[in-house]
Amino acid sequence: MQDSSAAWLDDIQWTDDGLVPAIAQDAETGDILMMAWMNRESLKLTAEEGQAVYWSRSRGKLWRKGETSGHQQVIQDIRLDCDGDVILLKVVQKGGIACHTGRRSCFYRSLTDGEWVSTDPVIRDPDAIYGKH
Amino acid sequence: MQDSSAAWLDDIQWTDDGLVPAIAQDAETGDILMMAWMNRESLKLTAEEGQAVYWSRSRGKLWRKGETSGHQQVIQDIRLDCDGDVILLKVVQKGGIACHTGRRSCFYRSLTDGEWVSTDPVIRDPDAIYGKH
Repeated sequence: MQDSSAAWLDDIQWTDDGLVPAIAQDAETGDILMMAWMNRESLKLTAEEGQAVYWSRSRGKLWRKGETSGHQQVIQDIRLDCDGDVILLKVVQKGGIACHTGRRSCFYRSLTDGEWVSTDPVIRDPDAIYGKH
Repeated sequence: MQDSSAAWLDDIQWTDDGLVPAIAQDAETGDILMMAWMNRESLKLTAEEGQAVYWSRSRGKLWRKGETSGHQQVIQDIRLDCDGDVILLKVVQKGGIACHTGRRSCFYRSLTDGEWVSTDPVIRDPDAIYGKH
């Protein structure tokens, strides 16, 4: 039997791989922090736990954002687009850093005179966030 | 010979289908308007023409946003994320409507008590935008 409590998950147009892109936006400033992917389980957990849980395509497993860095994303709103194939999360970004490079946002490069130019500062050294490998 | 003027396009991590997701954000308000896909040609044209040109996966052709509706997106900034696999466009949204439903943003549904609830008004009847079919 279908779990009726998860009917909202059936409204998602999942890719053939069972994924949906999720954009994380700072709920207060409107800054776009990152985009990552979710599978059904990670989206369900995101709603249940109130913190962003993605699906890591490279590692092939659930990725609780901030599990190593402490930079969790606390969910304020979960939105769906008209085609049902993109999720928008409005979040409070703990630590003020979403990007693994130690920057606030992953979108720190701007196209300028035909080149990608980094415009945003590194707030914290990634070695200090994740430890040296 | 490689066209050196398009070297910035080589920095994109295209999908196996030759696409990259592009998020359109209102440059002034920070509202996220939509997400669509681009191929190499559409991203090049976007930069050259200063207006958003997407790749329509359903129609399999270039999609100059606003070609029917008049709701073009004038480019203010083109940004790239840390992994090089997501584009962020900061735009001025002509007509104040990005969504084919006649709403400002495609992300007009919010998850509320386990259901997707429309929270944003239709600004203009789609029949008036696109003509009746």
